[in-house]
Amino acid sequence: MRTLKLTLAYDGTNYVGWQRQENGLSIQQVLEDAFQPIAGRDGRGPTVVGAGRTDAGVHALAQVASVTADIDLAPSSVLRALNVRLPADVRVLGVEEARPGFHAQFHATGKAYRYRIATSAVLSPFDRWFVWHTSEPRDVDAMRRAAAWLVGRHDFASFQARGASVADTVRCVERLEIVEAGGELIVHVAGDGFLRHMVRVMVGTLADVGAGLRDPASLTSILAARDRRAAGPTAPAAGLTLVGVRYDTSAPRVADSC
Amino acid sequence: MRTLKLTLAYDGTNYVGWQRQENGLSIQQVLEDAFQPIAGRDGRGPTVVGAGRTDAGVHALAQVASVTADIDLAPSSVLRALNVRLPADVRVLGVEEARPGFHAQFHATGKAYRYRIATSAVLSPFDRWFVWHTSEPRDVDAMRRAAAWLVGRHDFASFQARGASVADTVRCVERLEIVEAGGELIVHVAGDGFLRHMVRVMVGTLADVGAGLRDPASLTSILAARDRRAAGPTAPAAGLTLVGVRYDTSAPRVADSC
Repeated sequence: MRTLKLTLAYDGTNYVGWQRQENGLSIQQVLEDAFQPIAGRDGRGPTVVGAGRTDAGVHALAQVASVTADIDLAPSSVLRALNVRLPADVRVLGVEEARPGFHAQFHATGKAYRYRIATSAVLSPFDRWFVWHTSEPRDVDAMRRAAAWLVGRHDFASFQARGASVADTVRCVERLEIVEAGGELIVHVAGDGFLRHMVRVMVGTLADVGAGLRDPASLTSILAARDRRAAGPTAPAAGLTLVGVRYDTSAPRVADSC
Repeated sequence: MRTLKLTLAYDGTNYVGWQRQENGLSIQQVLEDAFQPIAGRDGRGPTVVGAGRTDAGVHALAQVASVTADIDLAPSSVLRALNVRLPADVRVLGVEEARPGFHAQFHATGKAYRYRIATSAVLSPFDRWFVWHTSEPRDVDAMRRAAAWLVGRHDFASFQARGASVADTVRCVERLEIVEAGGELIVHVAGDGFLRHMVRVMVGTLADVGAGLRDPASLTSILAARDRRAAGPTAPAAGLTLVGVRYDTSAPRVADSC
């Protein structure tokens, strides 16, 4: 048995999300199916574990996954064999030998996301699956002041999807920056881990602040409420991209905020 | 009757091209259909004339079109009315009042195109409809030396699609530059006009040179042959984007090459 670490990019538009589901095609399923000929047992592929369970319509530039299986091929041959079988909207960018027991989800020590808000009056046809288009004027300075309250170690229970239930809702947001560029607001978020919908609820709440519906300082009371109803709407999935996953615990964090 | 000048962006992936055809949906058709409620007569929309007839799968950042019709709305309202009706992969970026008789095709004095060749081993899923993916090594310097032979006023009959028959196949290529950037070769082409498939045959021929299949200086004999069989293959449509159209005859050309 060998354990491999995969780096993947995908356009999530046509998928129900990372995780295998009954109601449609998932990234996990197409990957496991692609593994079947090179590592299949009993007619099915091995289980592929993703660092994070991206939602339906969410994209990835460098998702990481792990797989433990009997595979006879060199990593570069695994890469080619997978890409031949995968649909063109899912690509394996890299395959590396990993230490035995490596688990892409449990061993991840940080993730980085990008959220694109298109603010132009007319949405470019090339961006239609990759941004949240909202041309309402936004006060970006107010959004930045609000964002500052979220950086650091906090209980993000208010920013977790309704119905999700993890025991520990404390996370460290190491970076939360809003960059204005070419008719867009690009929100860069990095941290040690994220609750379900956390980035999208953060962006929806910041957008509320930008529209004057909430005060920047209200973020403190939203955090304190520990109640999803206190925060703003969940921003659309299309704008969100998983940019990267961190594993090296000795690597310096993006910011010394936690 | 008024004449309007439209600027349009489109993702050409799902269309048979600019021109209305029996065998599928064209950009022209969806535009004319979108005009029907605001300028329709006898149950059909007015004719919309495009500056250039982009092929199936070719994209546009700023195609220009003209329409002459009875329209009661201000240009900004025409823009909104069209975008509400158009599919999201076709967007009107601008609507301006034009002088009577303005004709987007006949009055165009220049066009600029971009052709993207992805050279990375693995094609990004986000580029799959927008590039020609060919990871074969290319000698970019040789391609640039070959490109230099095409700049200027020449008879481009060898670079015209088979079956096309225009009387005058002389055109001026004002710019033909190859930029290497981020795992891509981007070919920038501008000129006073282009024959059918001309940019794609130019790119296919330059790619042959880059692969060592042709000598850079062979471009002179290819031009002299005035025969499509002398040139290289037609590069795939997906890599091509119409970047802009020029109308102002007093504007300086990109280069004084013709």
